[in-house]
Amino acid sequence: MTRNFMLTLCYDGSRYRGWQRQGNTDNTIQAKTEALLSRLLGQEIEIAASGRTDAGVHARRQVCSFKADTDADVSFMLTELRKHLPEDIGALALAEAAPRFHARLNCREKTYVYRVWNSGEPNVFERRYLYVFPAPLDLDAMRKAADTLPGEHDFSAFCSNRHMKKSAVRTLQSVEIERRGGEVRFRFTGNGFLYNMVRILTGTLLEVGSGQRSVESVREALESLDREQAGFTAPAQGLILWDVRY
Amino acid sequence: MTRNFMLTLCYDGSRYRGWQRQGNTDNTIQAKTEALLSRLLGQEIEIAASGRTDAGVHARRQVCSFKADTDADVSFMLTELRKHLPEDIGALALAEAAPRFHARLNCREKTYVYRVWNSGEPNVFERRYLYVFPAPLDLDAMRKAADTLPGEHDFSAFCSNRHMKKSAVRTLQSVEIERRGGEVRFRFTGNGFLYNMVRILTGTLLEVGSGQRSVESVREALESLDREQAGFTAPAQGLILWDVRY
Repeated sequence: MTRNFMLTLCYDGSRYRGWQRQGNTDNTIQAKTEALLSRLLGQEIEIAASGRTDAGVHARRQVCSFKADTDADVSFMLTELRKHLPEDIGALALAEAAPRFHARLNCREKTYVYRVWNSGEPNVFERRYLYVFPAPLDLDAMRKAADTLPGEHDFSAFCSNRHMKKSAVRTLQSVEIERRGGEVRFRFTGNGFLYNMVRILTGTLLEVGSGQRSVESVREALESLDREQAGFTAPAQGLILWDVRY
Repeated sequence: MTRNFMLTLCYDGSRYRGWQRQGNTDNTIQAKTEALLSRLLGQEIEIAASGRTDAGVHARRQVCSFKADTDADVSFMLTELRKHLPEDIGALALAEAAPRFHARLNCREKTYVYRVWNSGEPNVFERRYLYVFPAPLDLDAMRKAADTLPGEHDFSAFCSNRHMKKSAVRTLQSVEIERRGGEVRFRFTGNGFLYNMVRILTGTLLEVGSGQRSVESVREALESLDREQAGFTAPAQGLILWDVRY
């Protein structure tokens, strides 16, 4: 009996080459999880995630789906996953899903968080999940620039893939910027994100915050559709897929 | 001119053999920090910490002192320390101290925190700083047992060093136990702690919480002065030197 499952994962992406499988035994989160599920269920399992995450990017909550011909108990499967997944990949939940549920195709909205450590004091305990950027940041200026971004736009200027043939139009719901002690946290919510989009948006806003570019230049970069007009690509380690909604 | 300094460190102890130097180039926090300061100041520097931490134990705030014959600027020294210390050792602060200040001899009170992950859900992001103990825990029972511990006692039953010749009398100010979501956090404050004392106290309280021993047996173990009467030694990775007071 073929059943459809929704699997919710979290992972510390530090030592992986991202979500997407590149071969059958490679060091990606998809390959590790598929190999384990395939062994457990005695059949080849292919997992779809809400979206890929790049090498070094983390997920607080990544939603996946897969089909399997099995009558195994869901709680047994979850226990086995928790027992055998590597310590940096966690199975938060497993449930049977409607037959047509697909983690990528049905995804309605995602939230990414980018964590910047903006302090001279070291943060040794969370260092794997932070990008250290100690220059003083003008949060007001960054917020003004961020306020020009939400809406439906062609985000080509904030995409690393120059040869993308598909539409670069996405709807960004909100960009929020918050200081929490030594940390400055960026939160992006939208219906979809281009390759490196969150990291380039963050890099561009950091350039505003540190006085390297004007508030207005962000909207100008957006309208130019030109990657060269946007800022640097902030490193992967500060980026976390925070939540996925259906 | 010989000056005396107070250095405040934090560290992720995961990959170290503890605080205390065993040779001159070994993998301890003391050796790493001394080697760096010695190179920086062109003289052999010996650092005293408020106390040793064992292999794998972390420090949120460890206070140290050292003497150096230098007229180097304190903020320059701090910047150099931050630049060159490994990413898992952080220099929180450096200040000139009174000539007779000694981090170990003058230490008045310490707080250790022991973090237990008490949930079936995985915690991949903080896994290096948590001991995973998924069995249900009766916090009321643990608190009742913990309430019998504060005061001035001979804590021999909670010490791993069988051949200790010095006094095992210490004053424990408080033991607090708190649930925070999936985490159960133990907080021990006292004027000094014996070898493995916090880890054995935590292990013993976990045995109470999981129904493996009675509330009363904790006080009985204390009074027996017999290590065999106390519980297991909880692993190093959940233990954090939280604060040190002078």
